[in-house]
Amino acid sequence: MTKIYAYAIRKDEEPYVHEWKEAHKDVDVDFTDQLLTPETAELAKGADGVVTYQQLDYKADTIEALDKLGIHNWSIRNVGIDNIDLKKAKELGFKITNVPVYSPDAIAEHAAIQAARVLRQDKAMDEKIAKHDLRWAPTIGREVRDQTVGVIGTGHIGQVFMRIMEGFGAKVIAYDIFKNPELEKKGYYVDDLDELYAKSDVISLHVPDTPENVHMINDDSIKKMKDDVVIVNVSRGPLVDTDAVIRGLDSGKIFGFVMDTYENEVGIFNSDFSGKDFPDKRLADLIARPNVLVTPHTAFYTTHAVRNMVIKAFDNNLKLINGEQADTPVDLNKEF
Amino acid sequence: MTKIYAYAIRKDEEPYVHEWKEAHKDVDVDFTDQLLTPETAELAKGADGVVTYQQLDYKADTIEALDKLGIHNWSIRNVGIDNIDLKKAKELGFKITNVPVYSPDAIAEHAAIQAARVLRQDKAMDEKIAKHDLRWAPTIGREVRDQTVGVIGTGHIGQVFMRIMEGFGAKVIAYDIFKNPELEKKGYYVDDLDELYAKSDVISLHVPDTPENVHMINDDSIKKMKDDVVIVNVSRGPLVDTDAVIRGLDSGKIFGFVMDTYENEVGIFNSDFSGKDFPDKRLADLIARPNVLVTPHTAFYTTHAVRNMVIKAFDNNLKLINGEQADTPVDLNKEF
Ligand SMILES: NC(=O)c1ccc[n+]([C@@H]2O[C@H](COP(=O)([O-])OP(=O)(O)OC[C@H]3O[C@@H](n4cnc5c(N)ncnc54)[C@H](O)[C@@H]3O)[C@@H](O)[C@H]2O)c1
Ligand SMILES: NC(=O)c1ccc[n+]([C@@H]2O[C@H](COP(=O)([O-])OP(=O)(O)OC[C@H]3O[C@@H](n4cnc5c(N)ncnc54)[C@H](O)[C@@H]3O)[C@@H](O)[C@H]2O)c1
Repeated sequence: MTKIYAYAIRKDEEPYVHEWKEAHKDVDVDFTDQLLTPETAELAKGADGVVTYQQLDYKADTIEALDKLGIHNWSIRNVGIDNIDLKKAKELGFKITNVPVYSPDAIAEHAAIQAARVLRQDKAMDEKIAKHDLRWAPTIGREVRDQTVGVIGTGHIGQVFMRIMEGFGAKVIAYDIFKNPELEKKGYYVDDLDELYAKSDVISLHVPDTPENVHMINDDSIKKMKDDVVIVNVSRGPLVDTDAVIRGLDSGKIFGFVMDTYENEVGIFNSDFSGKDFPDKRLADLIARPNVLVTPHTAFYTTHAVRNMVIKAFDNNLKLINGEQADTPVDLNKEF
Repeated sequence: MTKIYAYAIRKDEEPYVHEWKEAHKDVDVDFTDQLLTPETAELAKGADGVVTYQQLDYKADTIEALDKLGIHNWSIRNVGIDNIDLKKAKELGFKITNVPVYSPDAIAEHAAIQAARVLRQDKAMDEKIAKHDLRWAPTIGREVRDQTVGVIGTGHIGQVFMRIMEGFGAKVIAYDIFKNPELEKKGYYVDDLDELYAKSDVISLHVPDTPENVHMINDDSIKKMKDDVVIVNVSRGPLVDTDAVIRGLDSGKIFGFVMDTYENEVGIFNSDFSGKDFPDKRLADLIARPNVLVTPHTAFYTTHAVRNMVIKAFDNNLKLINGEQADTPVDLNKEF
């Protein structure tokens, strides 16, 4: 009987592992909450493939441990593969898959909700309520429908974000270095970023952090924006010069900031500092501001996304095992 | 020169008073932040009309004070007129206007944002962040697009709420005692409330608090709902049996509750209890829950709504003064 062994299965993933198992009674599925390491590789003994989550660096020793067990079908439940020694994997004949798109809506919805909250001054109102001050004035909201929303990057996530903002009745404009023909026909695109900055009340980033995009939001670009602009970054921390945004917040130029990703997030986001100071004073400062909404890279974290990550990874793994073409293989000839 | 005197103008209303003044240079506009009382009526001396905000009871003495000044054109910036002695007003020949619709979007957007926040477990995540716990699991979100949203009442506000939820990609169903023909053609309506309760993941109320609607959400109706339902009340407090909702929250039947209006809100909402306990323990309990979002009747409170309230009230008042038909007159023959 075909066997798949899964590592690092969290409690919130278990229902979807069981769902997949139910639908594949001819496959023996087993799992652990432990991470895959050279030591825990042993747990997968007898399996035809493994399913993991990017968390640790998977170096030669881990890969060799799987190889020794005769396991060469490896499916990752998330996107990132930069922590895998792909050269070694290729050398030992591994086949690897990832899940590059699991739920654009998870991220787009988060961006929309958080942007709307900043416009509403929700956090300031929530803080008043916590202090038992139930007076509404002067904590007045701006309606989403009154905003011109500028979307930078009209890929998977940007497009969903555009649709949500239009549901609110906002005017949406967009910029992308590659224009989507359908969106172009509908007249969404402005000619350049300067025009987008000049016209937008809300600016949301949905581009990758390629070298040329690093710090695309900086003192210069902020200067080109409208007063009382709201900036939303649920994409990648390095896109934003955080110090420049703080200067914009301090001067009153920027009305509010949504930050799900942060330049310095590695080792901080998804960690527990309960009862301790953050190792990063700037982050603590941002979190404390009533017009800044920080979340620790949780935009992706929905039941829909997690289900897709689990189901798609198992689907991929079974295809690898059966010698079929997986839906989203990692190209080991290209990646290093 | 025609003169309009306005009472109880808040700081956030001033820009719109100035905007109206700019556009009507032939009208003398003056205002105060004081409420209209038998004593402050004097301030309006020489005016042809007054603009006020519903806050105090306007009894015979106030109305007579205006009458003595020869002022009989009275425009209210909000909806409610139940605190005006309309009989006396009619007797003394007053003409009264209100602003019944100032921004359905203000309320619908608030309902949508708060419902989405509850689905996301935003408050639980925000509380973790405040405690410096930046781990995302197990605080997982539900995407709006995955929900069936049941809308009770498809009037001004309900319809906007439906459009926003569809922008997110949710499936929308609706119930109204009067079916809107266009919505009916599009197939939104279910046959009865029981069907709506049985099918909806999110239930949002957009009906008035007529006697038959009081406590329409109660133990019985909650029993008919799906497990993990989210209930949204940004309409009127009396629609919801608050104790029944608390029982549903305690049992785990209800996933979360959005409450912008509350059965016992009079004298509590829009008041300041800083440093004091709330006079209402149940309210304090609700505010403390991570899956309940309480706001003190602020859904209406946006720049768009406030601008409309001011501009429409002044427009109305000028029409009354000029003997023209006001846009939204109060029918003094009907109202008492
Ligand atoms: N916060 C989270 O949890 C989370 C989760 C997943 C993805 N993301 C991030 O969201 C971003 C968008 O993801 P996606 O799936 O929509 O990507 P995508 O590849 O579908 O779309 C990206 C778009 O950006 C455009 N682009 C690239 N550089 C640009 C520039 N300088 N100016 C304008 N357009 C530019 C591309 O042409 C493309 O259309 C990525 O950075 C991704 O890492 C965040
Ligand atoms: N939270 C706030 O700040 C705020 C501000 C303004 C209005 N509101 C409230 O929002 C609610 C909706 O306002 P609106 O402007 O959309 O009103 P509306 O009159 O335009 O629509 C109300 C709809 O409810 C329907 N209805 C009445 N009883 C019903 C029942 N038992 N079942 C199903 N449908 C029923 C009516 O047929 C109508 O279509 C009102 O209660 C209003 O008081 C709240």
